[in-house]
Amino acid sequence: MSQHLSDIDIAQQCVMEPIDAIAAKLGIGDDDLEHYGKYKAKVSFDLWERIRGNDDGKLILVTAITPTPAGEGKTTTSVGLAQGLARLGKKTTLALREPSLGPVFGVKGGAAGGGYSQVVPMEDINIHFTGDIHAITAAHNLLAAMVDNSLQQGNELNIDPRRVVLRRVMDMNDRALRNIVIGLGGKAQGVPRENGFDITVASEVMAILCLASGISDLKERLARIIVAYTYDDRPVTAGDLGAPGAMAMLLKDALKPNLVQTLEGVPAFIHGGPFANIAHGCNSVMATKYGLKLADYFVTEAGFAADLGAEKFLDIKCRLAGLKPDAVVIVATVRALKMHGGMAKERLGELDMEALAAGIPNLEKHIENIKGFGLPVVVAVNAFPTDRPEELALVEEKCRALGAPVALSEVWAKGGEGGLDLARKVIAACDEPKAFHFLYDADLPPKEKMRAIATKIYGADDIAFTDQAEKDLKTVSALGLDGLLVCMAKTQASLSDDPAKKGRPRNFTVTVREVRIAAGAGFLVAVTGSIMTMPGLPKRPAALAIDVDEKGRVSGLF
Amino acid sequence: MSQHLSDIDIAQQCVMEPIDAIAAKLGIGDDDLEHYGKYKAKVSFDLWERIRGNDDGKLILVTAITPTPAGEGKTTTSVGLAQGLARLGKKTTLALREPSLGPVFGVKGGAAGGGYSQVVPMEDINIHFTGDIHAITAAHNLLAAMVDNSLQQGNELNIDPRRVVLRRVMDMNDRALRNIVIGLGGKAQGVPRENGFDITVASEVMAILCLASGISDLKERLARIIVAYTYDDRPVTAGDLGAPGAMAMLLKDALKPNLVQTLEGVPAFIHGGPFANIAHGCNSVMATKYGLKLADYFVTEAGFAADLGAEKFLDIKCRLAGLKPDAVVIVATVRALKMHGGMAKERLGELDMEALAAGIPNLEKHIENIKGFGLPVVVAVNAFPTDRPEELALVEEKCRALGAPVALSEVWAKGGEGGLDLARKVIAACDEPKAFHFLYDADLPPKEKMRAIATKIYGADDIAFTDQAEKDLKTVSALGLDGLLVCMAKTQASLSDDPAKKGRPRNFTVTVREVRIAAGAGFLVAVTGSIMTMPGLPKRPAALAIDVDEKGRVSGLF
Repeated sequence: MSQHLSDIDIAQQCVMEPIDAIAAKLGIGDDDLEHYGKYKAKVSFDLWERIRGNDDGKLILVTAITPTPAGEGKTTTSVGLAQGLARLGKKTTLALREPSLGPVFGVKGGAAGGGYSQVVPMEDINIHFTGDIHAITAAHNLLAAMVDNSLQQGNELNIDPRRVVLRRVMDMNDRALRNIVIGLGGKAQGVPRENGFDITVASEVMAILCLASGISDLKERLARIIVAYTYDDRPVTAGDLGAPGAMAMLLKDALKPNLVQTLEGVPAFIHGGPFANIAHGCNSVMATKYGLKLADYFVTEAGFAADLGAEKFLDIKCRLAGLKPDAVVIVATVRALKMHGGMAKERLGELDMEALAAGIPNLEKHIENIKGFGLPVVVAVNAFPTDRPEELALVEEKCRALGAPVALSEVWAKGGEGGLDLARKVIAACDEPKAFHFLYDADLPPKEKMRAIATKIYGADDIAFTDQAEKDLKTVSALGLDGLLVCMAKTQASLSDDPAKKGRPRNFTVTVREVRIAAGAGFLVAVTGSIMTMPGLPKRPAALAIDVDEKGRVSGLF
Repeated sequence: MSQHLSDIDIAQQCVMEPIDAIAAKLGIGDDDLEHYGKYKAKVSFDLWERIRGNDDGKLILVTAITPTPAGEGKTTTSVGLAQGLARLGKKTTLALREPSLGPVFGVKGGAAGGGYSQVVPMEDINIHFTGDIHAITAAHNLLAAMVDNSLQQGNELNIDPRRVVLRRVMDMNDRALRNIVIGLGGKAQGVPRENGFDITVASEVMAILCLASGISDLKERLARIIVAYTYDDRPVTAGDLGAPGAMAMLLKDALKPNLVQTLEGVPAFIHGGPFANIAHGCNSVMATKYGLKLADYFVTEAGFAADLGAEKFLDIKCRLAGLKPDAVVIVATVRALKMHGGMAKERLGELDMEALAAGIPNLEKHIENIKGFGLPVVVAVNAFPTDRPEELALVEEKCRALGAPVALSEVWAKGGEGGLDLARKVIAACDEPKAFHFLYDADLPPKEKMRAIATKIYGADDIAFTDQAEKDLKTVSALGLDGLLVCMAKTQASLSDDPAKKGRPRNFTVTVREVRIAAGAGFLVAVTGSIMTMPGLPKRPAALAIDVDEKGRVSGLF
């Protein structure tokens, strides 16, 4: 299983099929494709009219244990599983989140799977791709410019410049823009006020794009974005500013799903990538719906671990889009479980059954949670060369006790061939009887919705609210928005709201510090800790290693 | 000539040819096209290797008289002329600047020609197009983020945060971002300092993209961008920060020319659009070189009037790219000439031979200037319904005296059919003997280069330098950059540096207030007045009228 090629080497060695040939596997003809080069395309809105009557394929969600620095490989597993299903003769498609550009220059590198389970062309997918995120940046910043222009041109809407809640966005890791003062320089240069930039994928416009069912729905959601409050406490929306038409024009192509391929030629939609803390963290509803109608097995993933991404996928996305999952894959690694059990990262190659046993409860809790939604679970153990048979046996034994089959996944090293066992177990899971239900009723008061997530999913004893959160919830009620769903913004590093608590924390209370309103997306964001919405660059940014030669060939992107 | 359809109506009624068919007219095959939908494509770098041995076609530059609020129609004339040439059986292509997104939401509307002389798909061209400007935004802002990250992470390069000259960019009209303070919020949030945003097309990266001959040249130019000075007065470049590789990666596709079509199916390159004051204001060298090799007649335009755009096209772009123009078209309108003669905009429909006679010297000066470069001139009078035969006769008489034939251009109302006379006169001009030479020798000291432009092109008696400009020029000398070319940043509203002086101003001195260094682009920017590099939105932004329907059809873009 050792191999010395980097992800980009493997990706560049791949002889891709023309995107027309990939589309043809799904029965998509040339009229419904908008090409972006030879290996990327958007699919048309018209196609939807032709396929909406099709039966849905099986919906398989890939999620993971609580992330550690050891890595889990959720995207890699998603790609490998789809390749495994295709090798078993199943008509398969895949939908993943669209990578953000900013982190490419930081520490993260690319985000399109790894090894022999990647989506390609990986450089394009990681860079501008089809321009969706740039379109979101433009739409968001147009709205922001219209807010400040309204302030400058007589402030007809009576906006309190101290209470503009809309920030600006840029798809870049740029910490110096987190907190800024704008409008300096005198009367002709705007109204001075505090502001700041988030990374684009944290924009509510991204969340909206990912939940919209079409352009009309997109415009209605955009119109509901609350950008500021007036001096007399009334909300000011994007609709009040007259911005939704122009914003939707900027987003009209971004709303169309992007089609690419895996290294083994499986059709893959890569579309939309909202944050998994302040937003719902999964690819677009449009891509999911197209994927379900076009294949017999449809694989998708959700951000972070199952307590965040999967909970939001099930409670927010499935509810808003009317989706019913058939099976959930939870990705784990032996190394990460040992970290949850207290082992230091440097020692993870060593055998330590005690640490493993101490870490497995993290996985158990995620299994229990998904089972609690009435769904079958398959655990994918993403194989590493340091894994030992006795370690794998222990994981299997513990999962079996909870009714979850375990598959060793070698998709990183072997592509679809390494995912056959996983694919077979997933197919079996899809055929099991299931009784999917949401965790909470949307009609519950916001606090009760938050309590349900904290106690049932995170395993907290209770939930607490700071004074600020109480104040925010009063505003929510006053605005008649108690019926919105709940999106928890919690650390991804723990099941609790304390990133230091590994494994399966017990005897803790989750504290909601602030509640933000994403009225366009359709949820309240319950902030339980400090949430970073604009990353910074490290001392030695990954950008330093990136280059391109005279032929346009990229290097240093990993 | 009256017609009630808006530009977007006409554009949307056009039955476009697939871009493959347009490319085939130039002998470009599918292998050398990267499609962006059905009607836009980028052409490959490989194509250049196959066509570089071709003879160049005739190079025709379209420029204009000094702009007035009455409008001139330079882009419309360029498109119409190309259509006229094509109707005469000439193998023709066209290169125009890529419109900036920001102004679309302000007062300007679209920028892709007008009436029956437009490039299409006009909505796409005006919005994200193939993402070039978004790529420039990303590359520029990556560099800016790396500057602030260097300050934050120990400041190894000894950058003085008060002397960072690189601003940030956004393709939006957003006055509140002109002057900002960044890096607020404490130690982890960056180093506080003054900064600001320009609109993206004002970025030196845009100028560089438009002058680069390939990726290697692009990287070398990017490396030379001066971003800041150290505490001990040394320049810090993008190269010092290690940014050029990653920036070039972001720009690798943006460097490839974009191919679209005119309403009459003439192949048109739309590529690059730098400012015409602080930069050189014409489309990319790449598009120009491809266009010249692929057709017998190649039409292009330069920004603003002939004193700015054409001077820079001839002295900067032609010099750096080794181009030799064959003819220059100067676009005028009777209405604009009457404004130059002192008529109010509201009265322009009236007959006033005195005002016209008083305004014509503006046109005469531009003709003399172009003749001074050793090039033949054709004057295109862009027809308006209010034009009268005696007015046209006077324009013709005055131009004939200077050896410049005049053609009445009706390309707005009639497309290529309305440009046949212009096309015939341009063909004749191309066959005239010519002795093209630059205005100034690049080896002259910077002040003498600036003096040559001010006295010979603008008609100034002399040039003056403020203390700041003198100081800046000392820095230029100290850095060994006296050999850079000169790019004048002057008001476009007058031949002088005073926007109130219409017609042909005399007895004035041009004052250089500041000299900026665009070391990557390869020129010094001599700033002669207040130059706006970030526009604002008006009280009623054009964005308010823009909409898109469920099918993705755009309205309100004019």
